[in-house]
Parts: sequence; structure tokens; C-alpha cells
Amino acid sequence: MRKAYFDHNAATPLHPEALKAMLPYLGEVFGNPQSLHSAGQQALAAVEAAREEVARLIGAGAEEIYFTSSGSEANNFAVKGLAQAYQAKGKHIVVSAVEHQSVLNPVKSLEKLGFTSTAVPVDGTGRVDPAEVDKALRKETVLVSVMTANSEVGTLEPVAEIAAVCRARGILFHTDAVAAAGSLPLDVRGLGVDALSLAGDQFYGPKGSAALFVKKGTRILPLIEGGIQENGRRAGTENVPAIVGLGKAASIARTEMDARAARLRPLRDVLIDDLPRRVGHVVLTGHRTERLPHHASFCVEFIEGEGMLLLLDMQGISVSSGSACTSKALKASHVLLAMGLDHALAQGSVVFGLVDGAVREDVDHVLEAFPPVIDRLRKMSPLYTQYLKEKQS
Amino acid sequence: MRKAYFDHNAATPLHPEALKAMLPYLGEVFGNPQSLHSAGQQALAAVEAAREEVARLIGAGAEEIYFTSSGSEANNFAVKGLAQAYQAKGKHIVVSAVEHQSVLNPVKSLEKLGFTSTAVPVDGTGRVDPAEVDKALRKETVLVSVMTANSEVGTLEPVAEIAAVCRARGILFHTDAVAAAGSLPLDVRGLGVDALSLAGDQFYGPKGSAALFVKKGTRILPLIEGGIQENGRRAGTENVPAIVGLGKAASIARTEMDARAARLRPLRDVLIDDLPRRVGHVVLTGHRTERLPHHASFCVEFIEGEGMLLLLDMQGISVSSGSACTSKALKASHVLLAMGLDHALAQGSVVFGLVDGAVREDVDHVLEAFPPVIDRLRKMSPLYTQYLKEKQS
Repeated sequence: MRKAYFDHNAATPLHPEALKAMLPYLGEVFGNPQSLHSAGQQALAAVEAAREEVARLIGAGAEEIYFTSSGSEANNFAVKGLAQAYQAKGKHIVVSAVEHQSVLNPVKSLEKLGFTSTAVPVDGTGRVDPAEVDKALRKETVLVSVMTANSEVGTLEPVAEIAAVCRARGILFHTDAVAAAGSLPLDVRGLGVDALSLAGDQFYGPKGSAALFVKKGTRILPLIEGGIQENGRRAGTENVPAIVGLGKAASIARTEMDARAARLRPLRDVLIDDLPRRVGHVVLTGHRTERLPHHASFCVEFIEGEGMLLLLDMQGISVSSGSACTSKALKASHVLLAMGLDHALAQGSVVFGLVDGAVREDVDHVLEAFPPVIDRLRKMSPLYTQYLKEKQS
Repeated sequence: MRKAYFDHNAATPLHPEALKAMLPYLGEVFGNPQSLHSAGQQALAAVEAAREEVARLIGAGAEEIYFTSSGSEANNFAVKGLAQAYQAKGKHIVVSAVEHQSVLNPVKSLEKLGFTSTAVPVDGTGRVDPAEVDKALRKETVLVSVMTANSEVGTLEPVAEIAAVCRARGILFHTDAVAAAGSLPLDVRGLGVDALSLAGDQFYGPKGSAALFVKKGTRILPLIEGGIQENGRRAGTENVPAIVGLGKAASIARTEMDARAARLRPLRDVLIDDLPRRVGHVVLTGHRTERLPHHASFCVEFIEGEGMLLLLDMQGISVSSGSACTSKALKASHVLLAMGLDHALAQGSVVFGLVDGAVREDVDHVLEAFPPVIDRLRKMSPLYTQYLKEKQS
């Protein structure tokens, strides 16, 4: 059976060159980077070289990069750390309604500490209007967090415009770029952001590798407190192999991302154009063009996402029905609901995330396997039976 | 030149079997454990198998193990998460004066949220008296945290006795077992602890692998919030390779730790007995017998630890002068000061942490290299010159 992995958003495979770079640090170079002896200093040099590479990927300075263990940790660190560091200024936070749970849940926690928040709405494609952000700002707003790209619907947000709105009011702006970094060119100076989260496993780096950019001169409270690692802002022995792998993945992404996008975008477009033609009542979710180059997502009427992805899995096709972080929560996605989809339609979400190396034959395999899977599910669907009855009468 | 790595406490090398277990998850098995498709389920199965192994290492149930990215994260999670989950009960925390910064600093942060704390003193060997813990407890005490073993001086704490004191008063007890777990047999039921931190890189597992045991039925607030990973208590895509490596290291440690200790303890004792004989004004720190089997630590009068370890490094010997987490902070260790050592003596701290595979020749190499290093440093030391003058007069 042909295998087709279309779940970029859950995890990308580790690039062989990144693994190769990591191996010495899983072997003989095992020192702790904080140790003053040569075994430690060798590990430290590797960590600092990786920091340079991650910084270059997003146009930052190395001293502005803080390694974390996941995009979720980077988001928690940013939201809690910035809001609390500047809380003397005010205790109001603005987010978009489609942020990841690792942004939304920390905001909820801060509310127990006296913070308040505003969730800015999105349009039917999942886009935030910078004017809506401006409207949400108050004198006591201390932080705005809007993602660079949404992993469930692929939509790119107007981050530079939102950053400009915040800057004009002197308000800190963080962007969760976990879904975008390494796949799209990002420049923290050009974007004008104060903080940016990224994660290696979204661009062929290792799991457990991620980072938060924090603009020089910006205060932030640590999430993980203890030792002096990461300039005292993130305690815990550095995960040297993961950091080295992240550095290598960043270096490869910097030179390869355009070519990767050029290879994947046409395949994505085949899915976007052909899938709704092959199966009725399938609608694209997210923006048609302002979306991640590897990302095609749909809602399929009258069925539930979980059955769909299990049947597709039996055809060798790996997809998700939304965020891997909530796949078992069995709730309709807050992202799709915020975009105005009704609960029933939101249940039938399916996300295709192409990974580098995918070929036209993989896409054709999906296009062929998809209609019978949907047929089978709809035959079991009371909603579909009812729809057919109503149509006939 | 003979190489002798004696810095167990900063990092142990990765066991080749642990690396071997990890490699598939750095290669073809790259799915996200939260994905419902087979690529994800394969990763999930590996994570859950590792959870079983970690649980078995400490006599816990698998559902009581929460993976984290470092011992520091596990300590932050425990202290902040338990204290905040139970704060309705009271806002007083008891720790020992020799805890790691990843316990002490979270307590300081909680103080900004209205908590208060008491640091229980230690004796000259770094031991906590359970009666002192009992004295420190108040009606509003919500959490006690005392480490299992101290990485700077090797001393083992009477954890079971302290746990009993807490249990009698219905107070939660956490132990930072990062320095001890995997090196000494630990049983969470026998010890009677409610929470326990451990880290893979202290027992030949990978960096970035650690866990917190939380007794079933105990509430804890997440430190990293977001997705539903780790039963909703620790968000972020699981670091599958690191977790698998931790599981393997735990499994090896369970069967090997006694043999390892039996090999290293006599070598440790050679250092403890012979080093002070070869060089004057060298005192053992920590307890003579109630200490980690691989751990020998000393204070050397009239010199500073940093120069000592750099000169030893030139002889191929890797040691630390305290905790790697504070090695560059250039402050006298709070552990040594709490044990009653004066500032000058505490500056001359040196910690030998043997790793499995060390042989008598390595120890002999240290015993030979040490006296000339100390001689050289003392010749440059104004304190030593003064001492010699006073001795003559």
C-alpha cells in the first residue's frame, strides 16, 4: 500500500542532516554546557552555534534567542513572562480568537491573577483585521498575541500590520510563529515583533527543540526558574542534541524553504482544487491564497473527522482533523467556530499538511482514496440520510 | 593524556543501549503521539512503554508519571503546581536550606503571590533533621520539599522520615530526587512521598528527559498549559526520542544500579580517604557514609574552585566546583554556607562525580594530578602566603 504522510502540522520528519549533526552530542560530546571544563565548553560551543543559526532564520540577534522544549513552552513563556514582567503598566491582554491553546490557556491562568483579556474575532477565512486589534487595545493593555499562521486552517495573519498597530500604542506584541517559522521567510525586524515562538518539529528539526525570540531590552519573567542557563531566563540543563538539531534544521530551512514551498504549493493547490470536485459538500477552510504553502484543509459535511482519519489511515494516508494537541478532546475546534462554521460542519474537519518529498502520486492517492472513505462514512450518517430525504421531497 | 571524566552531577554519558532505543524515533517513527493515525499511535505506544519503565524504577504507577524536559522543569512544576493547587488550604511552604535553585527560586516567585516559606537548616554534613521539619510546619503549611540527595555534597537526606512527619500532619511532600534517582533504589510508596522529580541525564539517559511523579489523586496545576498531552497536566508535543531514551535508561538502571554502585563506591572511598592525605587543608564536604555512591566532594583551603577545575581540566580531568547550574555565577554555594562553612573555604569547593566505567587508574590519575595543581594555586594565593607567615611566627 502506498504510504502518504500528510500531517506536517503534527510533526515533520527529522532531516537526515539534522540527525547527523546531533549524533556526536548523543555520543562522546555529552558534557553539560554550563561546566567550565573542556567537555562542557565543547557542548556550549555547539549550543551557541545553534543559537546563531536560529537567530539568522528570523533575522534576530543570537542574544535574543531562548531555547525551550516545545512551541507550547515558548508560548507559555512569552505570554506569562511578558505580561507579568510588565504588569505594572496594566493587566489587559489581547489575543485573537484562533490562537493555539498554549496561548489561550496561559491567558486564562493570568485571569486568576487579576488580568483581563479580549479575544479579537476573525473573518470567515480565519484572518484577523488589524483594525479590530486596534479597537481592542486599552490604556491598560500590556500584551497582544496573534499567531503568524494557523495550523488548523493554514491562514496567514497580517502580523506586520498588527505589530505596527501595537507599536504605535507602545504595546508589546508576541506572535506564535510555530506553524510558520521555517516554512515561510520571517524577519523579526521587518515584522516589528517583540517576541516570536518557533518549534523545530515544524521544519524538519527534532522534537523537544523550540525557541522564543525576545527583542533585546525587553524584560520577561522566567517560566522555568532555577539555574543560570539561557541568561537566567530559562533554567534546566540545555538539551544539547535537540538544540544542535534545531540549529541545523534552521540553517537548512533558511536556504531551502523557498524551494520547498515551490515544490509543495502546486501539490497543495491540486488538493484544494480537486478534492471538492471529487466529493460533494466539501468546503475549503481558511484563506485560498494567504495560507501555508504546504497546507490544505477542508470541512466535510455530514461526517465526523475522527472516523474519516481512521479510514484514511487504513489507506496509508496520515492526516489530522485539527490540532494534534486536542485530537482526543473530541470538541469542535474553537478555530472553526470562531470562523463562523456551525458545530456540525466543524466536526468534519480534515487537515492535509504536505511534507517535503511528497510527490504528485501521493496527492493522487489521496484524491482516489478520499471519495470512497467519505461515501462509506456518509452511508452510516443519520444527518446525511436526513439530508437526502429532504432533498428528494 | 589520560582522560578522566568526574562530573556525573553535570551530565552522565548516554548509555549506548538508550541511544539505540532512541534512533528509530529520530528516524522513520516520527509521528506525533497525539495523532490518531498509525504513525502517531506507534509513537504513543513507545511513550507509554517508557512511562511504564520510569514508573517501575521508582515503584509508581504509569499514570502517576509526567514527562518533563528537565529536572528543573519537574521541580518548578511540582513546587508551583502543588502549592497553587492546594493554596486554599494555606500559603506556607517548607524547604531545606540546601535545595536546588529550581526549588528555591519557584518558592521565591510564589512569595510574590502571597506565599511565605521557611528554610529548615542542615547540620555540618548537609543533613536535614526531620524534627526540624516538624518544628517548621504550621497549620497553613501546604507543601514541604526536601531533596533526596544533594548534588554538591552528595549527602542523602532522611526522606522517608520527613515524609512521615508531613503525612502525620496531612501535608504534601515533594522530593527532588534528580541527583539520586537511577543511582539508588527509590520506592515512592516506601518513602511515602506525594511527588518526586527525576532526570535522565543523571543516570545515563538523554538530556531533555525528565519526569515528575505525582501520587494518584493529588491535584497539580500545569506549568506549561495548552494541549491535552500528559493528561492535560503538561502541554507540548512529547519529545518521543528523549522519552524513549529515558525509559531505556530507567530499565537499565533498575537492574544495574546496585552493580554500578558496588563498582563506584570503593573508588569514591579511595578519593575520600586518600585525597586529604595527599594535600593538606583539604576537607571532605557532606556525609562520610550517607552519600551518593559515586560522589566525593571537598573544600580546599586557600584557593578558588574555578582555577582548580581549569588546571585539572588541563590534566584531562573533568570536575566541577559545585552545581553546573550556577558554575558561572561566582557566588559561594548556598549549600556549603548552610552547612556552616565560611565563605573562604566554600570558594575552594571541588566535586568528583564518578561515572560508570571509571577504573582505579582514573582515580590514581586524579590523586597524582591533584597535589601539583593545588601547590601551583596556593603559590599564587595571598591567603596562603599569609597563613604560612602566621604559622611561622
